[in-house]
Amino acid sequence: MAILLGPNQYGKAEVRVVAVDRRSSRHSLVDLNVSSSLRGDFTAAHTAGDNGHVLTTDTQKNTVFAFARQGVGSPEDFGLRLARHFAGSYDWITGARVAVESYGWERISVGGAEHDHSFRRAGSEVRTAVVTVDGDHAHVLAGLGDLVVLKTTGSEFRGFPRDRYTTLAETRDRILATAVTARWRYTATDVDFDATFARVRTALLETFAATHSLALQQSLYAMGEAVLEQNPCVAEIRMSMPNRHHFLQDLSAFGLDNAPDGSGPVVYHADDRPYGLIEGTVLRDDAAPADIAWQGTPGFC
Amino acid sequence: MAILLGPNQYGKAEVRVVAVDRRSSRHSLVDLNVSSSLRGDFTAAHTAGDNGHVLTTDTQKNTVFAFARQGVGSPEDFGLRLARHFAGSYDWITGARVAVESYGWERISVGGAEHDHSFRRAGSEVRTAVVTVDGDHAHVLAGLGDLVVLKTTGSEFRGFPRDRYTTLAETRDRILATAVTARWRYTATDVDFDATFARVRTALLETFAATHSLALQQSLYAMGEAVLEQNPCVAEIRMSMPNRHHFLQDLSAFGLDNAPDGSGPVVYHADDRPYGLIEGTVLRDDAAPADIAWQGTPGFC
Amino acid sequence: MAILLGPNQYGKAEVRVVAVDRRSSRHSLVDLNVSSSLRGDFTAAHTAGDNGHVLTTDTQKNTVFAFARQGVGSPEDFGLRLARHFAGSYDWITGARVAVESYGWERISVGGAEHDHSFRRAGSEVRTAVVTVDGDHAHVLAGLGDLVVLKTTGSEFRGFPRDRYTTLAETRDRILATAVTARWRYTATDVDFDATFARVRTALLETFAATHSLALQQSLYAMGEAVLEQNPCVAEIRMSMPNRHHFLQDLSAFGLDNAPDGSGPVVYHADDRPYGLIEGTVLRDDAAPADIAWQGTPGFC
Amino acid sequence: MAILLGPNQYGKAEVRVVAVDRRSSRHSLVDLNVSSSLRGDFTAAHTAGDNGHVLTTDTQKNTVFAFARQGVGSPEDFGLRLARHFAGSYDWITGARVAVESYGWERISVGGAEHDHSFRRAGSEVRTAVVTVDGDHAHVLAGLGDLVVLKTTGSEFRGFPRDRYTTLAETRDRILATAVTARWRYTATDVDFDATFARVRTALLETFAATHSLALQQSLYAMGEAVLEQNPCVAEIRMSMPNRHHFLQDLSAFGLDNAPDGSGPVVYHADDRPYGLIEGTVLRDDAAPADIAWQGTPGFC
Repeated sequence: MAILLGPNQYGKAEVRVVAVDRRSSRHSLVDLNVSSSLRGDFTAAHTAGDNGHVLTTDTQKNTVFAFARQGVGSPEDFGLRLARHFAGSYDWITGARVAVESYGWERISVGGAEHDHSFRRAGSEVRTAVVTVDGDHAHVLAGLGDLVVLKTTGSEFRGFPRDRYTTLAETRDRILATAVTARWRYTATDVDFDATFARVRTALLETFAATHSLALQQSLYAMGEAVLEQNPCVAEIRMSMPNRHHFLQDLSAFGLDNAPDGSGPVVYHADDRPYGLIEGTVLRDDAAPADIAWQGTPGFC
Repeated sequence: MAILLGPNQYGKAEVRVVAVDRRSSRHSLVDLNVSSSLRGDFTAAHTAGDNGHVLTTDTQKNTVFAFARQGVGSPEDFGLRLARHFAGSYDWITGARVAVESYGWERISVGGAEHDHSFRRAGSEVRTAVVTVDGDHAHVLAGLGDLVVLKTTGSEFRGFPRDRYTTLAETRDRILATAVTARWRYTATDVDFDATFARVRTALLETFAATHSLALQQSLYAMGEAVLEQNPCVAEIRMSMPNRHHFLQDLSAFGLDNAPDGSGPVVYHADDRPYGLIEGTVLRDDAAPADIAWQGTPGFC
Repeated sequence: MAILLGPNQYGKAEVRVVAVDRRSSRHSLVDLNVSSSLRGDFTAAHTAGDNGHVLTTDTQKNTVFAFARQGVGSPEDFGLRLARHFAGSYDWITGARVAVESYGWERISVGGAEHDHSFRRAGSEVRTAVVTVDGDHAHVLAGLGDLVVLKTTGSEFRGFPRDRYTTLAETRDRILATAVTARWRYTATDVDFDATFARVRTALLETFAATHSLALQQSLYAMGEAVLEQNPCVAEIRMSMPNRHHFLQDLSAFGLDNAPDGSGPVVYHADDRPYGLIEGTVLRDDAAPADIAWQGTPGFC
Repeated sequence: MAILLGPNQYGKAEVRVVAVDRRSSRHSLVDLNVSSSLRGDFTAAHTAGDNGHVLTTDTQKNTVFAFARQGVGSPEDFGLRLARHFAGSYDWITGARVAVESYGWERISVGGAEHDHSFRRAGSEVRTAVVTVDGDHAHVLAGLGDLVVLKTTGSEFRGFPRDRYTTLAETRDRILATAVTARWRYTATDVDFDATFARVRTALLETFAATHSLALQQSLYAMGEAVLEQNPCVAEIRMSMPNRHHFLQDLSAFGLDNAPDGSGPVVYHADDRPYGLIEGTVLRDDAAPADIAWQGTPGFC
């Protein structure tokens, strides 16, 4: 029996680059958080402290800034350029993974007109991209995180099995709330990434809203199905959706009901923990698997 | 010399109440985080463990839910009802402070139409209210937090003194970015709180955008001045504005310039820490002081 | 009526300085987070963008590092040196506030011996110091934060008044858990800060543990009283103690009791929100008030 | 081409259970955060909103509390009991994953003696366990997170390749700081989990301290190798170690050096972002692979 080095990677995480296009007086900006990782033969660094193969993480950081100066484009395109550069830089580097978070900014309106160079953060929602280059292959995952949605009705939960530890009552009307994290894999690398992102996001939002939900699983699947139906360039989508519980508050001790048809608002308590967690994949039956595209990306599948 | 109990208060923090108005099929919701504190004679609890004067924090929580069932209204109005109730509940309770955070939700659009009962969290920005009842007096602070704004130009910083430890270069063109926390005090309790909040927020945003800034202090003061000029019901406003540094990245080692008039975007590094922190008050010279209105609310002044 | 600039301050927040004493092969380190704020006449910066009085926050940061090179000592002493330097630097600067967080590190043991230069973070507990210089006066607050403690018994809660909204049952045996934040004010600036800090921390821990608690207020007061009794150099202490609720879990639906004298462990659910929040001051009756010492420090009083 | 449901799971996340053993007056407690996920045939819930197969997440939560009442033991053993129960509960449930975080508490000393029922949180370090039951097989991962360590010397970084974007200077003496996250897989389920955890943790700490490090990769590998050499029941270990940069501060502009042999402490700036991120696996060459043991656990491999 021997002890060996197994899979490994290293890189620079969370390079916060802001690039401002000032070619006209109407500026625009991209605000990114870029993390890169390299894969290949780094055995000597591990076993002997020999850094002869280690393209430093400081160099990776510098490369991100230098490439940004030459233009950014979509997060996916920026990731592709960086990952291909790193994977092609030395013989012993066989692959690279570049993960990008993109933060949205909206123009501030002044007197009804959008300002040329003043912006407001659009919210906590994050657009994500993960590009993996492995030898001659490149894979692109797009995604979003922290898309927080809620339905005040149109959600039921019943028909579940009851064992010794089941106390939950069935309901035909509950609040359904979640924070969607979704990642989808493209079948190609020459996609119109910005347009497709917008279309996928709209499909997720509209389907969540329009689905009369008998289970959060049903909402998740319907959302994924809508994305795939509308976007032939998407091979699969993986979603993680916490069930953020809103419990109907019992007010009977105070002589108050809390019925939907009452005289006042219906009152719920929003609970932090524990929460349900629903995770699932929707895919095309002819999609070629691509495990490496997902390697190192948190999530179930 | 004796050891004594000094100022003290107690309450329930972070009651997460969601109230849904379902009186028509077009639902609306308010999403609040409510914290209450009571002031008065609680000496025996401290010195003898005698709870005879302690209206329990559990009761305070119950009261929040019960009152919500009877209607919420603006965060300021809800706070006023609760604080007056608590302060009037027992002889020994002489005051109450109720702090409310309000989270915004927007309707999801489906096929161009806003949905009746499906919503999306509007962002990380938070609307705040702090109501303090002290005997017969009531004070209302409104506010907002985490309003993140950025200008890509229109900001200079120069003319500062240079001592032994000064190395900073002057600049006529920098990114200016901050996350505004503001609280303003009303002169009355019968204000149209929702309308005034919207007006103040617009004034803060528009003034930040429109001010050519020679110092973040100048932006802060201009923002406060605009709020007071447009809103006679506001006695004073206190603002805390971190200066979130965006440093121009030096790319010369790679044979690249990083000039505003260059061929590509200008590239900055967004730094986490340290950050500047600018705090200040703008007030009317005829505003009666009201220290108690601010007691227990974090901030400089 | 005119609009005026009110109280204001500015500075550099969260300078993360690590200083390593390498004068012998047995190294030691201090790990600090330093924030400074200046007070004085900065009106022109606000009203005209004139920075002639603005000692830049970048200079404040540089000063922290330069002073650290000349030796750090206790957080309180380091804050005193910095605050006096800033307040004495220009005529128009009348005061300074320096807040320090100090993070603890313990030596790693190797084969039973403490290593000369390898350390482990001691936990999430933080030691704090706030020094305020105002003209010729200097004030020192010491403190600690996130000292998380819990008693599995020796805590009761009963005898409280019951109003319409009271549903809580009385109990003679509950878990009592809190995260202590405490700040105490010294009567002088030539205290042995390290020794006193250790003594105060021990008094807080021992008194929390040894007090049979009828109310969290009682624990708080007893803790403060012990600190003052043992430390003549402490004028007052302010404490904030959230009541982190641990609810006895009802297992009766599963045919299980959950009694203290049962066959297995007693099972509780640790709740996040809402939580009680108990805040109070213990002071000497002959302590001169010093409001400015507390200005800008979060907390009730 | 058809659209299908792919891999999926669901469960209850972050059940915060505290169990107190009160069988003698010297109490002990375990403080856990338990998350469970079920795998199997849940297609109808996704495609038709049919919950006939859905053992509710509320039931999973109840089960955690009920099982805790019957005794907890080590996190690994508790996870095994729960995962086997869930996986065996219905035909259509083919597997379960139970992840446990365990928080440490130490007795408070009062007058030199450890108190019977008063405790202090031991720090931010977390012990983890992940149990996966898949049909007849059970896999156990143990681990720890947020073990923050630092060496003030004994760390070099040199000999790395230099490309167009490399500006980093070589160094023979730097601070090395990281927060270790490690997970290791056992070859069996009847291990003495508590004793092995303690041994692994000691090996990680001692090896980090004792290794003269030429690369963080070298430290990581040495740490993993030590764990495997000392613990035959460990098949593989995966580690994630951020390189938390401490930059030597340049003080030359102030007429100060910052040399290791200087008159005062050496001064560093602790940076937040970006940071290096080193991830790797150390394993036995005869260890049977067990991909499913790692499924859903964040990390590279």
